[in-house]
Amino acid sequence: MPDTNLETPRLLLDRARLERNAARLRARCAELGVRFRPHIKTAKSVEVAHIAHGGGTGGKLTVSTLREAEAMAAAGFRDLLLAATITPAKLPRAAALQRAHDARLLLLADDIAMVRLVAAAAEMPFDVLIEIDCGEHRSGIAAGSPALLAIAAEIARAPNLRLAGVMTHAGHSYATDDIDSIAELAETERAAAVTAAGRLRAAGHGCDIVSVGSTPTLLHARHLDGVTEARAGVSLFWDLAQFSRGMCGWDDLALSVLATVIGHQHNGPVPSLVLDAGALALSKDVSANTFLPEAKNGILADARTGERLPLVVNVLHQEHGTVHVPDETWFARLPVGVVVRVVPNHACLTAAGGYGFYHVHDGDGRAQATWPRVDGW
Amino acid sequence: MPDTNLETPRLLLDRARLERNAARLRARCAELGVRFRPHIKTAKSVEVAHIAHGGGTGGKLTVSTLREAEAMAAAGFRDLLLAATITPAKLPRAAALQRAHDARLLLLADDIAMVRLVAAAAEMPFDVLIEIDCGEHRSGIAAGSPALLAIAAEIARAPNLRLAGVMTHAGHSYATDDIDSIAELAETERAAAVTAAGRLRAAGHGCDIVSVGSTPTLLHARHLDGVTEARAGVSLFWDLAQFSRGMCGWDDLALSVLATVIGHQHNGPVPSLVLDAGALALSKDVSANTFLPEAKNGILADARTGERLPLVVNVLHQEHGTVHVPDETWFARLPVGVVVRVVPNHACLTAAGGYGFYHVHDGDGRAQATWPRVDGW
Repeated sequence: MPDTNLETPRLLLDRARLERNAARLRARCAELGVRFRPHIKTAKSVEVAHIAHGGGTGGKLTVSTLREAEAMAAAGFRDLLLAATITPAKLPRAAALQRAHDARLLLLADDIAMVRLVAAAAEMPFDVLIEIDCGEHRSGIAAGSPALLAIAAEIARAPNLRLAGVMTHAGHSYATDDIDSIAELAETERAAAVTAAGRLRAAGHGCDIVSVGSTPTLLHARHLDGVTEARAGVSLFWDLAQFSRGMCGWDDLALSVLATVIGHQHNGPVPSLVLDAGALALSKDVSANTFLPEAKNGILADARTGERLPLVVNVLHQEHGTVHVPDETWFARLPVGVVVRVVPNHACLTAAGGYGFYHVHDGDGRAQATWPRVDGW
Repeated sequence: MPDTNLETPRLLLDRARLERNAARLRARCAELGVRFRPHIKTAKSVEVAHIAHGGGTGGKLTVSTLREAEAMAAAGFRDLLLAATITPAKLPRAAALQRAHDARLLLLADDIAMVRLVAAAAEMPFDVLIEIDCGEHRSGIAAGSPALLAIAAEIARAPNLRLAGVMTHAGHSYATDDIDSIAELAETERAAAVTAAGRLRAAGHGCDIVSVGSTPTLLHARHLDGVTEARAGVSLFWDLAQFSRGMCGWDDLALSVLATVIGHQHNGPVPSLVLDAGALALSKDVSANTFLPEAKNGILADARTGERLPLVVNVLHQEHGTVHVPDETWFARLPVGVVVRVVPNHACLTAAGGYGFYHVHDGDGRAQATWPRVDGW
């Protein structure tokens, strides 16, 4: 008789794996001599933030949205870095959370015009980091750019802004599975931040914070001399994108989606299972496929043990996932009504799919607790 | 001075376009002689459900999740079709909503084993539709399959289940932009549903409902003889995927995302704008690109007029969108701090990105109202 008493899709989080992943990151930061500022954009959860730091609210956090910042500040975390350029319209909420919780929300800036807009709108003091581009060219200015000192001077002129340091993110470290290349990128990331910090200090500016981080570069940096803190987020959960590049093992993957087999499809070119986990439950991210083309939209695993199954989600519709099976013997092995896990490509996007909370389990998929998420902006 | 007083990303919905799209769908159903059962999976909004039917709660709806069903029933809509196979674990909520609101939640079945599980778990009467596969091979059984009568007999045997009819969905109509091919698929869809209904009636079963629908086939069906109702969802909003196949015009596109230009990136191979709308705000769906490769991750439009700009979102990160510009003159035209609209690939996925509500406007992007969404399951 299949296990049919679980409403699906549901978001599963393996607590023991999360704790082990977090402990490894803390140990890695200790080894490198930097503070750990976990990025909570993946988890969007106060409980995960506690575990990331091994308990308590004394640790620093990185957030990707004001909503995350508000939830973390309300839970007692008082040193937060908002890792996307602030806009004037977001300042009232930023100020309200600093006031309400006696917290610091570190803001990012990389453009002198935006600094002027923010300076004009800031109704209370804010600490600002200048974002440095270490090669991804997503955001930030080059460490050697004349703009660095111009922006620093503009911040210094603004009554309510204070330059607190620099930050950079080697997001391009996701593009390779070669450990030596990642170590090189980690050095590029470190050097960019440290160079920018040196230029600021030489010009008479304060630069307390030198912040770097991406999961691969934190893992494989040879050293982080001159850096004060490192950020990483997805490495608390891991996902197939990171697994595909050898950043983690199968048994480190803490996040999965529990889905029910709601049908057996005999009519197509190949027989298929139909799951009640589709594009909203899994996201359309297929980033694992660059290095693991067989990952498709997610790899199936046993609902109880988490062991990998030789099946993937081949096709996604909004609320349906189609799993091609080699032959119809799989229909007896996975009858309608049973549940399976799907390990996703990209934990950050899958977890944000509208679940609202985690079902936290001890490895067997059976929820022991639910932890809320703070999705949206 | 740029308009910097709007928190972004925000989800914009053009009310006049929505109302015009809905009126067209109602007129189309009237012309075809079928009832309209709008699919609320795209909008997930009570207000949109009202507009879809031209006001009131007397109309039928299609829903994709129990959460949508619960919200629609609570708002007074009493005839709902849940367009994904039900599972036993979902029955308690289905029963609760039927009881609380004296509503009918039509359930789907396409597998005799699942019918047995559902029959064993049903604690009150449910009306059931058998899902027919008209060629997409996502879910459903073939209209001529022996399973059709076996499932009908199993439903007839179950004390709490009643066969209410058949439904099918020509989802494969999204794969072409050729109107004649779509008209052929509409006929295939119609014929599958009508054939299945005929077989059921010939075997002595009731079959009140003969339900078909996808946006393209509803638009281009030559006739729907024998069909009682049609379903369509994305055509209330439209999106680039439909625009790319000529299903709608630019001025029909009712949904967009308002984003702020948070940076100008000079360092990359091409100059870029940085938006505060990334993968969570837009989704990773790129379905418009099959027929409109230049759509990338979404096409930019003027924030006030909605006029198309010759720019697209080229690269997505979680909270950043990168827009390549032909030259740096665009930095003066779109300075940091201004807002732009992004028209998304796939309205269903973008709207579900965590916004929680719509900013409803009258064409100028300035919100006149907010309407909540019911995301999740």
